Amino acid sequence: MATAAVAALGWLVTSASPPGALWPLPRNYTNGNQTPTVLASPSFFQLSSQCKTLSDAAVRYGKLTFPHDLGGTAAGTGITGLKVTVADDSEGYPQLGTDESYSLTVPTEGVAELTAKTVYGALRGMETFSQLVMLDFDGERYYAYGAPWQIDDAPRFPWRGLMIDTSRHFQTLASIRSVIDSLPYAKLNVLHWHMSDSQSFPMESKTHPKLWEGSWSAQERYLQSDIADIIEYARARGVRTMVEFDMPGHAGSWCKGYPEVCPSTSCTQPLNLASNATWDLITALLGEMTGANGGKALFEDHYIHLGGDEVNTNCWTKSSEISKWLSDRGMTADQGYAYFVKRAAEIALSQKRRPVQWVEVFDHFGTQLDNRTIVHVWKDKGTLAKVVAAGYDALLDNSPGSDSWYLDHLSVAWEAVYGNEPCSEISEQSQCDRVMGGQGEMWGETADMSDEEQTVWPRLGAIAERLWTPRDKTAQALASGDAHNRIQAFRCMLNRRGIRAAPVNNKDARSAPPGPGGCYVQ
Amino acid sequence: MATAAVAALGWLVTSASPPGALWPLPRNYTNGNQTPTVLASPSFFQLSSQCKTLSDAAVRYGKLTFPHDLGGTAAGTGITGLKVTVADDSEGYPQLGTDESYSLTVPTEGVAELTAKTVYGALRGMETFSQLVMLDFDGERYYAYGAPWQIDDAPRFPWRGLMIDTSRHFQTLASIRSVIDSLPYAKLNVLHWHMSDSQSFPMESKTHPKLWEGSWSAQERYLQSDIADIIEYARARGVRTMVEFDMPGHAGSWCKGYPEVCPSTSCTQPLNLASNATWDLITALLGEMTGANGGKALFEDHYIHLGGDEVNTNCWTKSSEISKWLSDRGMTADQGYAYFVKRAAEIALSQKRRPVQWVEVFDHFGTQLDNRTIVHVWKDKGTLAKVVAAGYDALLDNSPGSDSWYLDHLSVAWEAVYGNEPCSEISEQSQCDRVMGGQGEMWGETADMSDEEQTVWPRLGAIAERLWTPRDKTAQALASGDAHNRIQAFRCMLNRRGIRAAPVNNKDARSAPPGPGGCYVQ
Repeated sequence: MATAAVAALGWLVTSASPPGALWPLPRNYTNGNQTPTVLASPSFFQLSSQCKTLSDAAVRYGKLTFPHDLGGTAAGTGITGLKVTVADDSEGYPQLGTDESYSLTVPTEGVAELTAKTVYGALRGMETFSQLVMLDFDGERYYAYGAPWQIDDAPRFPWRGLMIDTSRHFQTLASIRSVIDSLPYAKLNVLHWHMSDSQSFPMESKTHPKLWEGSWSAQERYLQSDIADIIEYARARGVRTMVEFDMPGHAGSWCKGYPEVCPSTSCTQPLNLASNATWDLITALLGEMTGANGGKALFEDHYIHLGGDEVNTNCWTKSSEISKWLSDRGMTADQGYAYFVKRAAEIALSQKRRPVQWVEVFDHFGTQLDNRTIVHVWKDKGTLAKVVAAGYDALLDNSPGSDSWYLDHLSVAWEAVYGNEPCSEISEQSQCDRVMGGQGEMWGETADMSDEEQTVWPRLGAIAERLWTPRDKTAQALASGDAHNRIQAFRCMLNRRGIRAAPVNNKDARSAPPGPGGCYVQ
Repeated sequence: MATAAVAALGWLVTSASPPGALWPLPRNYTNGNQTPTVLASPSFFQLSSQCKTLSDAAVRYGKLTFPHDLGGTAAGTGITGLKVTVADDSEGYPQLGTDESYSLTVPTEGVAELTAKTVYGALRGMETFSQLVMLDFDGERYYAYGAPWQIDDAPRFPWRGLMIDTSRHFQTLASIRSVIDSLPYAKLNVLHWHMSDSQSFPMESKTHPKLWEGSWSAQERYLQSDIADIIEYARARGVRTMVEFDMPGHAGSWCKGYPEVCPSTSCTQPLNLASNATWDLITALLGEMTGANGGKALFEDHYIHLGGDEVNTNCWTKSSEISKWLSDRGMTADQGYAYFVKRAAEIALSQKRRPVQWVEVFDHFGTQLDNRTIVHVWKDKGTLAKVVAAGYDALLDNSPGSDSWYLDHLSVAWEAVYGNEPCSEISEQSQCDRVMGGQGEMWGETADMSDEEQTVWPRLGAIAERLWTPRDKTAQALASGDAHNRIQAFRCMLNRRGIRAAPVNNKDARSAPPGPGGCYVQ
């Protein structure tokens, strides 16, 4: 353990006491070097509101903060509680930009205080508090390291997420819940659900009930009620859930149930733009998600992802029907592609959702796109600068290069992931402000329930701190070695909390540990 | 899916409906081909006793049997409940031989009935029932496949376990709980806790509080209260917990806190048999476990594992003190080894525990061993025949060969594990009866919290069916392909239940899936 670097941040580290896992670093904080006892009790969390989100969070954070039963009633002096005060206890779905700021004061004696504007800010602060408490095994007491603390925190970027892919492999509900559990541990707030792709379509559609005939099996499917449960599970943890139906490429699985939406059964994608059935299906399917068909929206999020990537129009030009449709309208195949992605975006906009599309739509069609489109930049980061210069909001998850945020790129180590600064090629702050944030992308070709979590963690933590913590602080933390120390402690904490984070120093993300060793050093 | 083989067992399989995961196969059963609806309700489980073990199990099995919220109240005809009747509702710690038999009747309409002599037998039957219920996604209803069922079940061997190793890597409490969750899914009933080894000593000792100075870090430790919680967690699931302190070899971590029990700081094991401090420590440490020091036993199990394997006496002969001690008594170093393991066994016996020791103690000392010693055969299976012929009770977990039950042998596929018949080299039934069962051994050199579960599963399932199901039925299931079909379905069920079981057909146990695919075929 590089004790010196941690001590430079004012944390107490002794040989008997590995550092805590304050991750991501707060925006502003001061702290000391005391280690007051923290006196666990059933009434430890004192909430200004008994709304369900906060009271359920107090139960969760009670278990996370005090995971050992020390028996009897804690006595003596020390920190006796955490008073949580929110200005507004409304529990509505957390949309992009929902205030996540909080202030946390941890004294050396008495009651710690957490204040936030929203319940979701309070969740972020409860997470921070839980990370400041450790068990002193020799003394059989909980303590707060580095006290007293004064923390004023808020995220740098409002969109900090993970994409999961339920098409290349079905991810069980238990797996998705476990991933959602883990996101707030790093203050992440978006689950991007890449629901369907060429390989399978697992979701129930009530308007098009044959869509899930494209699932891997009759058991590898999601009921809409399952999805609603997942969305609420995420909401309660301050996590938005955005669905993606990738189209018109990556949609071959749709034709298992509805062959009429594909060019042919042997050449299945991009979807058949010449058929009314295609547009009827898209309109109805998105309507089920957004509530535009009437009834309750399945996904309340203001954003919906429409894919748009990797479109090869060969299946269109091979089809006489589609070729005629294009030539009747004087369109090239590429213009047909533009037509498709713009029309899909219009459907989303008409259903009161902002469309998110992969960067190819900007590469091809530039400012033809509706200016409410969010461009999801998976290609080289230089494109990000062009996208925001053109006035579009954007998300970063660059695939190429040694600092990729594609988590299926197993050889990209955490330091590179961490060092990936979204605005490194953007000179004007006003343009950096158009970067809404970014995501780790867990493409599922070789990730099923058995190995997904250790592929995601701990590297997703590197993305999380990059997106939460001010730029100057992350630069300093990486250079000093402090980030390395803390991400090791963070990984150990994830393991304690039941998350299968892999060893930090693995050459390939999810490898087994190379031999016997402690969690803080592997 | 090899539908025919499953259909041969009378199960309903359609292309839209993958088979259920009845695993392990019951001893005796008949069944039909109906698929009655199962009507979930809060009062589905009707218990003859409200003892905590059964009522908690009903909550757990409610979630496992009915994991989807179908909304509203189920109506119509079908199976309306499971009546659970136990002859004896005592909840004492389940010792070896505790009756696990049960009878289960699943009709096509009305109430299913489960009867058992003990609460632990009832748990086994609830597991079986939960495996007979599937969700029909298209019909949005639960159903029992292959009804009506009449099952009369009991295990072939009474000892069916998993060894975990918390010395090469610390395993977090969350990881151990997850593993314990999974054991009853395959009707396993023993957690063998290989607590300490050369690399680390993670456990709190109240008589020798410096022992855990041999832990990897001050956070990678177990309080005794943590261990008590784990033991109770396992008990509530019908799982015994047996602790192992491997000695006199594999004990170098003890000298971090107590150098006086080792030959020297540079040559740490086998433990110093010439020092009273060694015997005082062992007596006191075992006394903490067994309650012989006064107070409550930490481990109530009637068996305690004392290791005894891989003893190289070089550190003894290098020590002038120990060499003198041996020569004063006219002992060779090997006789000193015999002295050690027998004296350790005597301490256990004096504390009312039967000692379990690895097979080297039999290889070296044969019938010199107390006849209450259980010989744990990790070497070739031929030794097992010799051990039981000599009148000792024995456990199987052979390491060598292509059918090893060492789960860290990653290239051993599930079929080989399944095909490993404990009594294949034993001709007399009376000697086979001395085989108490066996275990999968999860040695922890390259298994930490991040990869342990997918190293263990699904291969531990193969061991579980081998040890539960009658010999003729396992032979038939393997030959017909039925076992292959069912273990794939079982793996998918484990994934649904949150257990990270790896793809069945992996060449190396815990590899990632090779590409996109469904759970039932990878």
